[in-house]
Order: sequence, then structure tokens, then C-alpha cells
Amino acid sequence: MTQPRTGRPPRADAVRNRLKVLEAAEAVFDARGTTASTEEVARAAGVGIGTVFRHFPTKETLLEAVYVSRLRKLAEEAGALASADDPGVAFFAFFTRVVGHAATKNALSAALTEAGVDVRDAAAETGQGLKQALATLLSRAQEAGAVRGDVGLPEVMTLLVGASQAAERADVEVRDRALNVVFDGLRAHR
Amino acid sequence: MTQPRTGRPPRADAVRNRLKVLEAAEAVFDARGTTASTEEVARAAGVGIGTVFRHFPTKETLLEAVYVSRLRKLAEEAGALASADDPGVAFFAFFTRVVGHAATKNALSAALTEAGVDVRDAAAETGQGLKQALATLLSRAQEAGAVRGDVGLPEVMTLLVGASQAAERADVEVRDRALNVVFDGLRAHR
Repeated sequence: MTQPRTGRPPRADAVRNRLKVLEAAEAVFDARGTTASTEEVARAAGVGIGTVFRHFPTKETLLEAVYVSRLRKLAEEAGALASADDPGVAFFAFFTRVVGHAATKNALSAALTEAGVDVRDAAAETGQGLKQALATLLSRAQEAGAVRGDVGLPEVMTLLVGASQAAERADVEVRDRALNVVFDGLRAHR
Repeated sequence: MTQPRTGRPPRADAVRNRLKVLEAAEAVFDARGTTASTEEVARAAGVGIGTVFRHFPTKETLLEAVYVSRLRKLAEEAGALASADDPGVAFFAFFTRVVGHAATKNALSAALTEAGVDVRDAAAETGQGLKQALATLLSRAQEAGAVRGDVGLPEVMTLLVGASQAAERADVEVRDRALNVVFDGLRAHR
């Protein structure tokens, strides 16, 4: 329903509020899991519950927005790393970053799937960008001799999925040691 | 309820029938997924549906029995490999075997979780045996210099979980190439 507007259009305010809610939601879901309530998000954002619902009519739309925002940030980071000085460092840094984000990402994705939202659909476009950025990082690292030449993007994606899934169940030290094993395997044989 | 027995006790028959149903269930769930019906299992086993229900009163008890049987077989294989001539070959063969089984095992585990059965409970004992067998395989492979000495059982378990999860989504060639990356990482640095 359209509300009667008074004074100047609240466009900038609305955009600012949406972002505020989104950022609060990211922090709250990170810290307290995806079962955290919309009320908690409103409180963390310092807005009324009405403002949350105006931008995100359901918990699912909020979860989805957080999920897509996460993917977009990762894609942006990958894009930035694609022009880094050391392609090997850039590739492994990004791999580590994705795995570090995995626990939250998987929880969000599971919550969405449970709510009946098709995650692939919601995130397909952003995911595509991420995949392309990863392809660039990989081929640059291979050209620089930092990653062996005989692995392709599908293998790297598979390793990334596996590492992300496993990261959820392991403590940080174990995760990092397991990741180093994978990285040693990915390094070029000298 | 106890049925009146006539003639010799049907103990051996019952054991045989239970095994027949269990093996048929494994084959059917493998081929057609865990949504396959109990009727299909009965048909594959060549027994009446009543026989299936006598041994496995619900679909969940059947799924659970298949799951535990899978784990037990893997634990037996690990036990057998623990005295193999080449500890390196034995370790990597077992890792590959677990990952190869993963798709079915994960599907079974997911179906059970969805049905509200606590998989950890159901399989805890067998899982413990498997873990111990893996520890033996690992330390023998490390002593033989086939696996680097600086990885512990938690890392190997984490890599195994990751590889198993990833294997579900990748086609066989990609899975094998990704697995080889992990194996290269696990090999002793020479």
C-alpha cells in the first residue's frame, strides 16, 4: 500500500535504512545464527520493527538479501584481488576468505532452503560473477607458476565446496591445517 | 506380539530374511535414492512386504540399518587394510573408498536426520571403530613415509568430510582430480 508522502521524498533515507537493517542483520545472524529474530535485527539496527518489515516483508527476504550481499562482497573482493601484484598470494587469500565465510554462508543457505527459497535462483547471477572472478584468479596464479597447471576450475570449485563444508565442523586450527594440505596439493610441483 | 511357533524354530530363516532385506535395501537405495519405497525393497528381496515390516517396522529403521551396515563394512575394510603390505597404498585406498561411498552415505544420513533419527547416536559405536581404524592406517602410512608427519587425525577427518561432501556434487572425473590434489598435499614432502 502506498503511504501519503509529506515533504521531500524519503528516497535517500529509505536507502540508508535498508542498508542499516541489512548490515545489522549480517552482524546478528553471524553472531547468533539464522534463528535470531527480526526483532533482534531491528534492535541492532536501531530502527523500529516496522522499518525492517517495510524493506524486508518476511524473515526469508531478509535472509536472502544477506546471502546475496555476502556473495556480492566476495565477488567484489575476488575482482579486487584479480589485479593484485602476487597472483599466487591472491588466489590462496581468496580461497581462505571463502572458506572463512563458509559457516555463515552455509547456515544462511540452509535456512533459506528450509524456508523453501531456491538459493540457486536467488544467488545465481552473483554466483556466476564469483565463479568468473575465481577463474581469473586461478589462471593468473597458474601463469605465475604458483598453482599447478593441471587443475581446472571445476576441481578448484569442488575443493572449495569441500573445504567450506568441512570448515563448518572443524575448529579453526584444524581447519587451517587441513586447508594447508589442500594448498600444498594445489601448489605447482617444482 | 509373539506368534505361536509350529515345527522347528524359524531362527535361521529369520536371520537369513533380515539379511536378504537389508542387502536389497542397500541396492535399491543406491540405485533409486532413499525415497524408494519399502514395497520396492520387498520386491527386490523377493519377500512379502510383511517380512520387511517384521524386521524393520518403519522405513526409518530400515534406513538406519542400511546406514549402520555401511559404516560397519567400511570399518571392516579399514581393519583389513591396516595389515596391508604397503601402508601408503592402504591409506589412500581407504580414503578413496570412503569418498566413493559418500553420496549414498550422505543421502542416507540426510534422510534419517529429516526423519528425526539421531544419526550420531545410531552410528556412534561403528563410527568410533572407523575412526580408530583410520588412525591406524594414518600412523602406519606416516611411519612408512607415504604421508607427511605433520598432519593429525582431526585434519585427515576434516579432509575426508570435505571430500565426501564435495564428491556428492561433482562428476566422477572432477572428483578424482580434486581428490588427487588433496592426496598430493597429504604425501610426504620429499
